[in-house]
Amino acid sequence: MKSLEWNNGKVRFLDQTRLPSDVIYIETDDEGKIANAIRDLSIRGAPLIGIAAAYAVALAANKCGEETPSGIASYFDKVINLLAGTRPTAINLFWALNRQKNVVEANKRQGLNAVRTALLQEALGIHEEDAAMCEAIGNLGADLLPNAASVLTHCNTGMLATGGIGTALGIIRKCWEQQRLKHVYIDETRPLFQGARLTAWELRNDRIPFTLLTDNVAGFLMQQRIVNAVVVGADRIASNGDVANKVGTYSLAVLARYHDIPMYVAAPTSTIDFDIKNGKGIPIEQRNPKEVTEPFGKKVTPDDTDVYSPAFDITPCDLVSGIVTEKGVLSKPYEQSIRRIRGMASS
Amino acid sequence: MKSLEWNNGKVRFLDQTRLPSDVIYIETDDEGKIANAIRDLSIRGAPLIGIAAAYAVALAANKCGEETPSGIASYFDKVINLLAGTRPTAINLFWALNRQKNVVEANKRQGLNAVRTALLQEALGIHEEDAAMCEAIGNLGADLLPNAASVLTHCNTGMLATGGIGTALGIIRKCWEQQRLKHVYIDETRPLFQGARLTAWELRNDRIPFTLLTDNVAGFLMQQRIVNAVVVGADRIASNGDVANKVGTYSLAVLARYHDIPMYVAAPTSTIDFDIKNGKGIPIEQRNPKEVTEPFGKKVTPDDTDVYSPAFDITPCDLVSGIVTEKGVLSKPYEQSIRRIRGMASS
Repeated sequence: MKSLEWNNGKVRFLDQTRLPSDVIYIETDDEGKIANAIRDLSIRGAPLIGIAAAYAVALAANKCGEETPSGIASYFDKVINLLAGTRPTAINLFWALNRQKNVVEANKRQGLNAVRTALLQEALGIHEEDAAMCEAIGNLGADLLPNAASVLTHCNTGMLATGGIGTALGIIRKCWEQQRLKHVYIDETRPLFQGARLTAWELRNDRIPFTLLTDNVAGFLMQQRIVNAVVVGADRIASNGDVANKVGTYSLAVLARYHDIPMYVAAPTSTIDFDIKNGKGIPIEQRNPKEVTEPFGKKVTPDDTDVYSPAFDITPCDLVSGIVTEKGVLSKPYEQSIRRIRGMASS
Repeated sequence: MKSLEWNNGKVRFLDQTRLPSDVIYIETDDEGKIANAIRDLSIRGAPLIGIAAAYAVALAANKCGEETPSGIASYFDKVINLLAGTRPTAINLFWALNRQKNVVEANKRQGLNAVRTALLQEALGIHEEDAAMCEAIGNLGADLLPNAASVLTHCNTGMLATGGIGTALGIIRKCWEQQRLKHVYIDETRPLFQGARLTAWELRNDRIPFTLLTDNVAGFLMQQRIVNAVVVGADRIASNGDVANKVGTYSLAVLARYHDIPMYVAAPTSTIDFDIKNGKGIPIEQRNPKEVTEPFGKKVTPDDTDVYSPAFDITPCDLVSGIVTEKGVLSKPYEQSIRRIRGMASS
């Protein structure tokens, strides 16, 4: 089962807003529909957003009527801008669009057909690479977990969020394959319940034992020594190792530190933003207040309730025990280990 | 507006499960209906549960057909046992029932009428005392808050949870009256949304400015130095100062400590369990998994999802900056300050 794939000139994707009650695939040849799907979280997860955006550019290529290099370039600039405007925090989106922009640049003089072929090739490549990165991250991360690992995770970082088995959830899957995983604890992850809806669904499909928690239970769980590791994903990592991830990650990191429990961040190197110094430079998306005041369309609050609902928060690098990438496990000082990894060729 | 009152031989109470969309009062002369209302959280909040239970014993007195001292005693034993079985954590319930048990004991030889009158007197007294305790707590606690206080609170500790203006919310109200309160941040408080439903409703009625958060945002808020104090209530306090309160309180306490923000617990001395040494002795109620898997009757999770949903958690005394009671602000070492307060006459 795949959360998204290229299918005969179309993109076929699972509508994640309908899970777990309905497993519905949507097929489209319209890049605008992909943009909307990213915006409304039908397609979500930093790596998957990147993959989807790359395919969307390839879809747009089929509708392009330009033939001159400058016409081609300006057509794709518009497409790329449209897609770049969907969500602000996950860097994988901009990373994938940048790769497609370079593909356009490199091929526009060979004509539209060459650009078309190359864009699809690049998108398929990004997708395949991501699956391979998940495998590598899973294996490297599983080695870090203790035996009889009881792992707390947040949000969804699995096959629904990536092109493969997942990042943090990839680690959990590999650890389970190795028969060293005891149990998974999942934060429900308000406001959108990605833990309760998506991670629970993935683990149940894989028959990996798990227990669901409201987000405010995590501290009590750690106090009782029920979990011995925390593993999460990332939406953007600054060049000093500061991590933007689903809101609540920072609280988990502080709690893990207080209880002396290791806290690992799992992400492909495409999640690293080498151009920003630290977490302060990462834009934080604000969510629609209705997700808080009206979960499932049922109004919980009095009228005109003011809401603060950042989608992500920033975990300072100091609280991260290790960053698991496909190129290796980064450790402190992250400024150096990230600089080192930047120079490495893609594996 | 009162959340509960004695009204001509009946108890009239606000059905808190219907707030904020419906403001519905229920009137009953049946102690069993009060027990059910406590069990299903129509009546909730540690102090209010105690008040309601005391009134319920007074209601039961009107139906008593016993005339002998032993008949009277065994009749009320049954009533008190019924009420004691409703919820396990809030000590105020057992404290109020114990007061009524003593009233029965002291009056049973004077006949049923004397017992009846005395039980109602005691219940009205408990209610009035609680309102006075809230006033005292509010004033003492407001003095602790910084100027331009930006206070984070959890769950509901207001007039809906007490017989007066509230405990933690009483402090917030007094601080607002003194024009030293800048803003209140409310955790929505999963699974039952008491913050989003009840605290938001109370603050809106009082026109006190507030912002609602999902529980996992609190850490990020502290990191940004947006709040300068945390104030919560308590369901039971052990004799060493360990605090049982709504789940999530412990996480807030760790986060507050990490950010060097004071964390105050507000509760009447009726919330202190002088008979237990520390938090390990406090029984923790487990909530119905459906409150997590099916918020508002909408199923979020896959089938057969395992849930861990403690209603409360334990905050070790070391993380509490001060315990605000009607008899004064207790400070460390709490073992001594609590022992001292035990000897003091009721104010």
